[in-house]
Formats: sequence, structure tokens, C-alpha cells
Amino acid sequence: MSDSAVFVQELQAIVGARNVLTGAEDLAPFLGDWRGYQSGRAAAVVLPGSTDEVAQVMRLAARHGRSVVPQGGNTGLCQGAVPSDDGRGIVLGLRRMATIRDIDKPSGIMVAEAGTILSTAHAAAEAVGRRIPLHLGSEGSAQLGGLVSTNAGGTGALRYGPMRELVCGIEVVLPDGRVFSDLRALRKDNTGYDLRNLFVGAEGTLGIVTAVALRMQPVLRSAGHAWIALPDLAAAVPLLTALQDRFDTSVQAAELLSGNEVDLVLRHIPRSRQPFDVRPDWSLLVELGSTDATADLRAALEDWLGERFEDGTVADAFVPQSEAQAADIWHVRHSVSEANKLHGHSLSHDVAVRPALVPQMIERCAAAVRAVHPAANILIVSHIGDGNVHFIVHFAHDEWAAIADPAGTTTQVMALVHDQVATLGGTFSAEHGIGRKLVAELHHRTDPVRLDLMRALRDLLDPGHRMNPGAVLGN
Amino acid sequence: MSDSAVFVQELQAIVGARNVLTGAEDLAPFLGDWRGYQSGRAAAVVLPGSTDEVAQVMRLAARHGRSVVPQGGNTGLCQGAVPSDDGRGIVLGLRRMATIRDIDKPSGIMVAEAGTILSTAHAAAEAVGRRIPLHLGSEGSAQLGGLVSTNAGGTGALRYGPMRELVCGIEVVLPDGRVFSDLRALRKDNTGYDLRNLFVGAEGTLGIVTAVALRMQPVLRSAGHAWIALPDLAAAVPLLTALQDRFDTSVQAAELLSGNEVDLVLRHIPRSRQPFDVRPDWSLLVELGSTDATADLRAALEDWLGERFEDGTVADAFVPQSEAQAADIWHVRHSVSEANKLHGHSLSHDVAVRPALVPQMIERCAAAVRAVHPAANILIVSHIGDGNVHFIVHFAHDEWAAIADPAGTTTQVMALVHDQVATLGGTFSAEHGIGRKLVAELHHRTDPVRLDLMRALRDLLDPGHRMNPGAVLGN
Repeated sequence: MSDSAVFVQELQAIVGARNVLTGAEDLAPFLGDWRGYQSGRAAAVVLPGSTDEVAQVMRLAARHGRSVVPQGGNTGLCQGAVPSDDGRGIVLGLRRMATIRDIDKPSGIMVAEAGTILSTAHAAAEAVGRRIPLHLGSEGSAQLGGLVSTNAGGTGALRYGPMRELVCGIEVVLPDGRVFSDLRALRKDNTGYDLRNLFVGAEGTLGIVTAVALRMQPVLRSAGHAWIALPDLAAAVPLLTALQDRFDTSVQAAELLSGNEVDLVLRHIPRSRQPFDVRPDWSLLVELGSTDATADLRAALEDWLGERFEDGTVADAFVPQSEAQAADIWHVRHSVSEANKLHGHSLSHDVAVRPALVPQMIERCAAAVRAVHPAANILIVSHIGDGNVHFIVHFAHDEWAAIADPAGTTTQVMALVHDQVATLGGTFSAEHGIGRKLVAELHHRTDPVRLDLMRALRDLLDPGHRMNPGAVLGN
Repeated sequence: MSDSAVFVQELQAIVGARNVLTGAEDLAPFLGDWRGYQSGRAAAVVLPGSTDEVAQVMRLAARHGRSVVPQGGNTGLCQGAVPSDDGRGIVLGLRRMATIRDIDKPSGIMVAEAGTILSTAHAAAEAVGRRIPLHLGSEGSAQLGGLVSTNAGGTGALRYGPMRELVCGIEVVLPDGRVFSDLRALRKDNTGYDLRNLFVGAEGTLGIVTAVALRMQPVLRSAGHAWIALPDLAAAVPLLTALQDRFDTSVQAAELLSGNEVDLVLRHIPRSRQPFDVRPDWSLLVELGSTDATADLRAALEDWLGERFEDGTVADAFVPQSEAQAADIWHVRHSVSEANKLHGHSLSHDVAVRPALVPQMIERCAAAVRAVHPAANILIVSHIGDGNVHFIVHFAHDEWAAIADPAGTTTQVMALVHDQVATLGGTFSAEHGIGRKLVAELHHRTDPVRLDLMRALRDLLDPGHRMNPGAVLGN
């Protein structure tokens, strides 16, 4: 019997025959990223049902010298869960590990397995009158393990930080099959080095996250929303700072949209509308929320915006008077990706600088791109309070089809954008990670000492480079 | 010339002769912890003035095979900055590196050198209308580098987390003299492994923190305080949870005190008082604060406490009507350490469990201690929202003097307390760290996989074990 046949048989002995997929059709959904940018091959897809099974699979893979690509909901944007081309490794899917092990309401903690879908975790928290404040487009299919491994961001990060700041405990199976378990979920624990954060955001290259403890938050009992028309881009950050000075952590979300992005949504997305006579060049969508049922946030926000209108820091503002109206404004924000996809091809850059530098960064990047592509449509969608800008160079379908060298154009535009971001001390990957998409950028743009330390950590934990090879460091 | 003389001469060449202390009197303040529990020896105390000088000193120390003990304000509680007895190493004091490099108000970031005293950082933030929300007894002498290296906690951690959650950038000189610098202070940055958190809380055993970036918060413009008399210990956590459900992050601090601890303060501390007819057995001191100048938190808190009094979850409550009255109640809390020192000898344990388990933990520990020392006075001071209890077994001066084997008693009581905490999934070091005080406990009580990973990280970054030898892992 071939080594591969023995390997598959041994995998079956661990997780059960039906949880080892080897047929071409069964494998297909696991071999590429959902946007179809990249795909690979695998000897099998393995679906373990417990931490112990993951540990056994890892020891077996180590013995056979096989690579292991962990995969959650496969909703990532950087091709971080695509197996390599040699076809010798396995994809390890976490979806069968979806048990919520513990909900400790008095302590505000949920312990859930890696395969738990984010929206399931939301519902479980809500059932006990609590919240998990992580929100992003893919929450109906993204899994907690992947969200932890990519340190996911989203609109809730303004107040609560990215996933790293929601995690208060972790369980990881190491490349050699040992289990590092720290699910006590203590708010304070100063017993030596912080190991948890090594695995958060490591994109499965240092081990497999099998369970996490998350902090839950009180439910919000009052809300206020606004679509603010800004006089110009420069007004955005001072306005948000003033809003936070007044409303503190009641500010739950603040999203900047360029006018041309709003146009694309209005054009392509049913039931989308904007509330002004003239569509603003720059819009800031804000959400306030408070646990205090007696707080009238809508009225307070209206008053506050009225004062800002008087002093000219706000050009116009729409404050929804009903939940339906509030849903309408967020419908525009959440339809951005779909509208862009319907309209054409996006070269999207997930960059960040300090918030105060966002206007300068947008202007510099736009100028650099326009110098080469004068007709480029530059769309801005920004979690502006985090300094995080999705800088999108957009081509209509026919424009993109007319480009002679699409791959070269993609690389060229990326370099133009990332160069400008670097001059302002920014990052070329704010919330989406490195995956396989940005490996070359990581090597090109990272401080050598930092890169050396990363390599050394990888060599320490995974000397054979068998964990998610090709992702992050690239080998 | 001896190797030692050459070493000192070379140190002088780097930092200047007057910044290398070698005389016995000059060395003395750097050789022991401030509580006088432990002291050591050193070839010299070196006071570098820049990151580059620290790097040069580290390279020199590496060449000479000398150990390096970094020292900030030397206010730690676990003997984490005491040099070893061989006298061959150096103490590296950070106090000359006290420049605030950058205050970026619009982005909410301060970049300061490690030797900056916490209260100086407070003042610098206040000068631009911002706050650094870390508060502890030693803030007038504790330095940022030490606070980062020990991941300090304090009363602000309830809302803002410990130091780890305030840090958004770090600069570290590695044991080999390389500089790892990540002071861009971005809110989101997913470019590879998180290295920052490795150095936060590593107590100077993986490198020397030379500068940090801290997040600043908006100033608070309204406040409310209360001294709440609880019906019993079990009432504390549900009451705090309800308070947070109502007031969310306006809850800035919540401190639990046992009645006998209040007694000691009233007895020993001038101008201390308690507001009730009968001193409560269990007290919860709370502080609310909001950026909203229009919020009447005092009135809202009074109303809320009135309802709790009606339903019996609060036995009595005092809401200060002036700043002076508010200062009075916090004066009691902040005088605890001094009162205990004046009255006798404290065996103090810095333990934590999940908040919901605090009453059970206190009861179990108290029972275990009383089984052996029936007359022990057990004082409780707790950051209860963090599940963090300072469990203090207190002996009056004459009682302690009568104990035959003080060292043995200390060890015995510690084991009794830590054993009980362990049964509830708690930690034996919540916010004070390991230092040299708890090395044996770390080895005894830590999961072997975690301990192995810690050792491997140490060996990776400091193969010669020259950084703060004796602290944390103990060699």
C-alpha cells in the first residue's frame, strides 16, 4: 500500500471514514478561496470532531511529513487557507467542532469551539442578554477559529478593538500535537509570558486554534444613528473625535464613504437610497448605542449635530426617526462589496495609518494612482476611527477587460498605494491579514528585526514548516 | 587591568563616566526591592540616556557575558528587579530616558520613553485634554517601562484593562543589542505575528523596553461615587453586573473591602472615616465617570441605588454630595497598604478567578487558612470586576513576632491559599507578576506545555539567560 493510502487510512481511523474527504467533488469547496483567486490540491480534507482528534491528526501528519492547512468558514480575503500545489498535505476543516462549551453570564464569558459560526455565537450571547461585538459581512459563515487566526476587524472595532481584544482565552493544538490550553478566561493573569497573542493573527502557521474564550458585553437598550454629509474629507477625523469626546464609548461605529462609492450602491443595489437633495462628496455614517434604556441618544445626537451644523463642521445630517430608516442607511454601507462586484473589478487595499493622517493618506495615494491611471475611479470605504481605509481602485467591467496586463496592473497599483502609506508610517494590511496574497509585501516592507523574530518563532514552533505553508512568511 | 575594570571603562565610554555608578553608597538604592525583602550585588549601575546607548550596553554585556537587570522606579511587589548575588552583572536604570517623544492628540496617542514616571505621563496627557487611565498607589515613582514589563493593573483595569490593553506600540532592545521598534501605534495592523505582547509582562527577561506608545482617552466631565454597604459578600458580583448593565463603561472603578480592613484604616490613618452608623461587613466603593458634561451621574446613581435598597440587594449606600466627600471615601481605599503596614505584618496574595467565583474563592481560602491559623485576621481588598482579590492574612506586630518560623508560615499560608484558588481555575498572580517571589509557584502550578513554551521562548531570545536572571523562570 502506498504511503498516501496508509496516511488516509490512518486519518480515517482517527476521525472516522466519513470525515475524511478524498473524492474530487468533495474536496473542491476546500481547495480555493471564495473569490476564486487561488486554488491548490490536497491528499484529503479531514474533519475532526474534538481537540483530541485534532491532536492525533497533527501527530500523524508530523510522522508522515505532511502539511496541514487549517480552514474555518473560508471567508478570508487574502487566500490564507488555500493548500499548496503538491497535493501531499491535508486541509483540516474545523466545522464539526462547533460546540459552545460554556456561557458564564455572571463573568461575561463564552467558551466556544473554533468551528462555531460567528452569527451562532451572536445568537447564543443574545439568548442570555449579552453581546459578542464583532461584526463583519461574512458573519453568517465565518468561524471563530478563523476570525481569531486572522484577528478580524470590522465595524465594531472602533469601540471594542479587533478580535484580539475580545479573546480572553485560547486552546491551540501545536504542530507536534501537544495541546496548549488556556481557557480559564481570567481578566488578569500575570503568570509569565503572554502566549495567547502569538496565536491570534498567526493565520494557522503556528498551530491550530481549536477553542476560544470570548468576552461578552451588556446589551444595548438605546440607539442613535446619523448619516452626516461632511463639508470635506478633512472634517471627518475632528468630527469623530468631537463625537467621542461628547459620547465616549457610546460611539459604536463610524464609517466614511466617498460619494462615488455611494453612487455605485445606489445604482446597483435594490432598495438603496440616500437622504439628501444632493449626494454628498463625503459621508460619515455613525451609530451610537448605550445600555441605558433611559438615554435618548437620538435626541442628544440631533442636538449635537445641530450645533455642528451651526458652526459649519457638518454640511448636513440625516437622523433616522425609526429603526427602518436606520436600517436603510446601514444597508448602503453593507452593500458596498456587492455593488462594486456588480459594477466591475476592484483593486482593494486594506491600509491603515494613525487616524489623523487618513485625509493625507487618501490624497497621496489617489495622486500616485492617478499619475499612472488618470481615469481610475477611486472608492473610499473607511473604518476611519481606526485609521483603516479600504482604498479601492475600481474599473468598470469593460475598462478592466481592456487592460492588457491585469496582473501587472494589480501589482503596480498595489505598489503605488503601499509606497504612499509607508511614507506616513502606515501598514499595508490593517485587518485582512497576509495570507498568500501579501507574502511578497511582507518581506519587502517589514523591518528586518521584526522579520527575523517572526522567522525564529516559526522555526521554533514549526521547524518543518508544515503548518499552512505558503501563508504569512511564505514557506 | 582586570576584566571587570575593562568592562566598567567600556560602560563609561558608552554612557559617560557619571552615568556608571560603582560606589557602594551609589549602588545601594538599586540593589534591593523597596520593601526590603531581597537584595543582591552588581558590578555597576548603568544609566543610559538613549535607545542607542542601551543597545551598545547590551552588546557590551553580551561580549563580556554579564547579566543585565533592567530597573524602572523599583516599585514592584515581587522582587522582579533585584540583581543576583554574584556581583558580576549590571543594573540598567532607565530613569534618564524620560522624554515624551510625541503627543498626537487627534490620533489619541502618546509615545514616551521607558523612564517616564506614570504621574508625568498623566500630566502630559491632561495638558492636551486627554487621560492615561492607569492608576495605582506608586504612580508618583513607577516608570512606564516597568509598568509595561509587569503588565500593571490597578483600579482603572475594570474599564480599560491592565497595561497590556493601553499599549499600542513598543520599542525593545533585545539581549543581543538589536532594536525591535514598533512605535507606529496603529489601531489595526495585521502584518504577521504579534510580537509586542511577548515583551509586555515579560519582566525584562526577553529584552529591555525602552519606549512605549499608549492610547489616550477623552477626559471625564461628570462623575458619581458611592460607598455601598452590601447585605453580604455574595451580593457584590450581581450588584456590579447590574451596575454595568445600567451604566456600561461609565463604571470606572469598583473596589470591594472587608469590614476588618476598613477598621484597620479607620484606626491608623488620619482623616479617615466611614459614613454609616454601623461599619458594614462588606463594602463596595464605586466610581462612575462620563465624558458627557450634561450627564448627572450622581443623581442617576442615587436613583439606581434607591431601587436596589428597595429590593434588598443593597443594605445601605452613601453618595457623596461634594468632591471632598468623594475624596474621603477613596482615601479609605488608598490607605489600605499603609494601614496594614502600620498595624502589623501582611501575608498578601494577589489571586484571581472569574468574577462570579470570587465569593466562593474567598470562603474556601479563608476556611483553609483558619483550619491552620484559627486566629488569623483575613483582610479582603478586591478589584472585584476583574475577579482579582488581594487576599491578606494579617498578623498584628506582636502576633507576628511570636511566630516561631516566619518563613515557614509564609510558605505554608501561600500554599493553602494558592491551592484553593487553583481548584477554582484561578491564578496565583493576577496583576503583580512573578519576579523572584513566585518562581517556585510558577514551576509548581503551570501547565507543562505552557512552561515548555515559555522556556523555549526564553532560550530563543536570550540563550545565555543573561536578562534579569532569577526572575520569572528562575534562571
